[in-house]
Amino acid sequence: MSSLDLTADVAELTATLLDIESVSGGEKSLADAVETSLRQLPWLTVLRDGDAIIARTELGRAERVILAGHLDTVPLPTTPGSRGTVPSRWEGTTLYGRGATDMKGGVAVQLALAATLSEPVRDISFVFYDHEEVEAELSGLGRLARNHPELLKADFGILLEPTDGVVEGGCNGTMRFEARTTGVAAHSARAWMGHNAIHDLAPILGRLADYRPQTINVDGLEYRESLNAVKIRGGIAGNVIPDEAVLEINYRFAPDKSIEQAEAVVLELLEGFEVRRTDAAAGARPGLDQPAAAAFVSAVGGEPKPKFGWTDVARLGELGIPAVNFGPGDALLAHSDDEHVSGQAIHDCLAALTRWLS
Amino acid sequence: MSSLDLTADVAELTATLLDIESVSGGEKSLADAVETSLRQLPWLTVLRDGDAIIARTELGRAERVILAGHLDTVPLPTTPGSRGTVPSRWEGTTLYGRGATDMKGGVAVQLALAATLSEPVRDISFVFYDHEEVEAELSGLGRLARNHPELLKADFGILLEPTDGVVEGGCNGTMRFEARTTGVAAHSARAWMGHNAIHDLAPILGRLADYRPQTINVDGLEYRESLNAVKIRGGIAGNVIPDEAVLEINYRFAPDKSIEQAEAVVLELLEGFEVRRTDAAAGARPGLDQPAAAAFVSAVGGEPKPKFGWTDVARLGELGIPAVNFGPGDALLAHSDDEHVSGQAIHDCLAALTRWLS
Repeated sequence: MSSLDLTADVAELTATLLDIESVSGGEKSLADAVETSLRQLPWLTVLRDGDAIIARTELGRAERVILAGHLDTVPLPTTPGSRGTVPSRWEGTTLYGRGATDMKGGVAVQLALAATLSEPVRDISFVFYDHEEVEAELSGLGRLARNHPELLKADFGILLEPTDGVVEGGCNGTMRFEARTTGVAAHSARAWMGHNAIHDLAPILGRLADYRPQTINVDGLEYRESLNAVKIRGGIAGNVIPDEAVLEINYRFAPDKSIEQAEAVVLELLEGFEVRRTDAAAGARPGLDQPAAAAFVSAVGGEPKPKFGWTDVARLGELGIPAVNFGPGDALLAHSDDEHVSGQAIHDCLAALTRWLS
Repeated sequence: MSSLDLTADVAELTATLLDIESVSGGEKSLADAVETSLRQLPWLTVLRDGDAIIARTELGRAERVILAGHLDTVPLPTTPGSRGTVPSRWEGTTLYGRGATDMKGGVAVQLALAATLSEPVRDISFVFYDHEEVEAELSGLGRLARNHPELLKADFGILLEPTDGVVEGGCNGTMRFEARTTGVAAHSARAWMGHNAIHDLAPILGRLADYRPQTINVDGLEYRESLNAVKIRGGIAGNVIPDEAVLEINYRFAPDKSIEQAEAVVLELLEGFEVRRTDAAAGARPGLDQPAAAAFVSAVGGEPKPKFGWTDVARLGELGIPAVNFGPGDALLAHSDDEHVSGQAIHDCLAALTRWLS
């Protein structure tokens, strides 16, 4: 079981993490290396659960913060010539590799902080977890919350997802629907014997195309919503009137709404059609009015922004922990074939968090 | 090489033909049996080309008619419990099996006529061919027309496709289009960074749903048209704004229109969108005003109807041969899992044609 050199330059440490492939479900080698390295730090109490690890200082500080990051990545790119793959590669001062943005740069910052801050001014719970990039029920963070709720107690949380080095507060929720139309199959040369289910999608698509998504101010941040058809299918053969068509719809909603309130928006818009919710995850309010968050924002500087994509700050919020996103790298590069991060961004993130915790 | 008993009851002969599986591309055994049987009839001149056969009387009559039918069937049903399969089965006076309707009942009538009419009042060219149920370029009838155009000369043609024992004149044409919309992919939590190609289908589907297909009188028959979306697809993943969506459209148009005229109808309706014709086969006018056709209609009786589905009468029409559809069985059962035909329908068809040709 190899150990990592946590005192190496944090950008070099990121490259080492990238070289250990850890697609969701295959996090074991990386989790082993992280666990072994953390157990060598006498100021941390370490717990392993599956491929998730919690490492805590126990200094009796007045405040405790969670620094959390996931160990897994989406699958490697399949397009020939992609640079965001394994092993990693430096091009000048830019590091390419699967997970460079999402989110091994953030994990390297967590590990560097763990190795250097033996006496932080706030108690820290470092949380590393598996299965973030797949179905919610597999989430390693969810499992930790079920198995070890007492170890996840904290006053504030920072998720080191990529935010380009500024604080991104809360997150939009996400919800999926299936709209289904039902017709009657017939030979397409005798269409009047049947009923065309694809034609019946026309008014549903029309309402979606005409809808103007809202932008909603929550706790001072502007959450821009999105409502979109994301998949469509229908039809049996080139000479058959289709008897079924299915539209998949994704709604990204501001954290002022509960799941029920968000669902009502879509069901009202598509009233009169067969629409069924298939999936939902609530958003999280930014909570920047809370003292811990406000102090953090003022310590790291910059203008806080809203997070549009769903992240595990929502899960921390459900546990009663106000949390923000703050990490190195551009979220737009996450999951891309040419995923990369600059060495500078990783250094800057480490410096900001070190300042706040020292 | 087995021979068929062409003097057996024509419904029993149909059952024998059904028991020789002949899915498109696998017509050889059936073509062998047909050829062997026909070569035993001294009043016929027989030619084999691939798995197609032409057998002609050469009596020097004033008029020559083609009686044509295809030997192939669509694939066997895959649904357990289907009755329209191989071998065939009698249930009372109804014969079940793949090809019962489309169109081995008609082929049995052709063979019975060939075996019994040694001195018909009109010269007859019996045509049996392969590959009707697949792409047009594989058609055995098309190949015969290229290789032996002189043997296909005739004053009138009868295609023994199922018409429930009434004359169905001509046929609608058929044409396929692809309508394609192009957007810009983006994460569905930041939809404003992209452009939704599925939403762009809304006006196209709206125009198709609102369109009222025409019914057009051609030579006294009412050809009802159909214009339909038959397939739709689009979308990459549940969290990605789709950058492409594709709609497949099928237009069945009356035989008053050329392919170009029919194409213009659809392109005008969908003006402003990216629409491309992918496939086309012209229809055929009924030609019931021609003396040969009129005489045939009056001999077999009944009220002629238009044929809505495309058939090889269009191909005969292109060769300059006015032709009609006339055969046993209900066209709505063609290709169905429970394909069947009544013994009575086969007997009636044989009797009508025998009357006209004796």
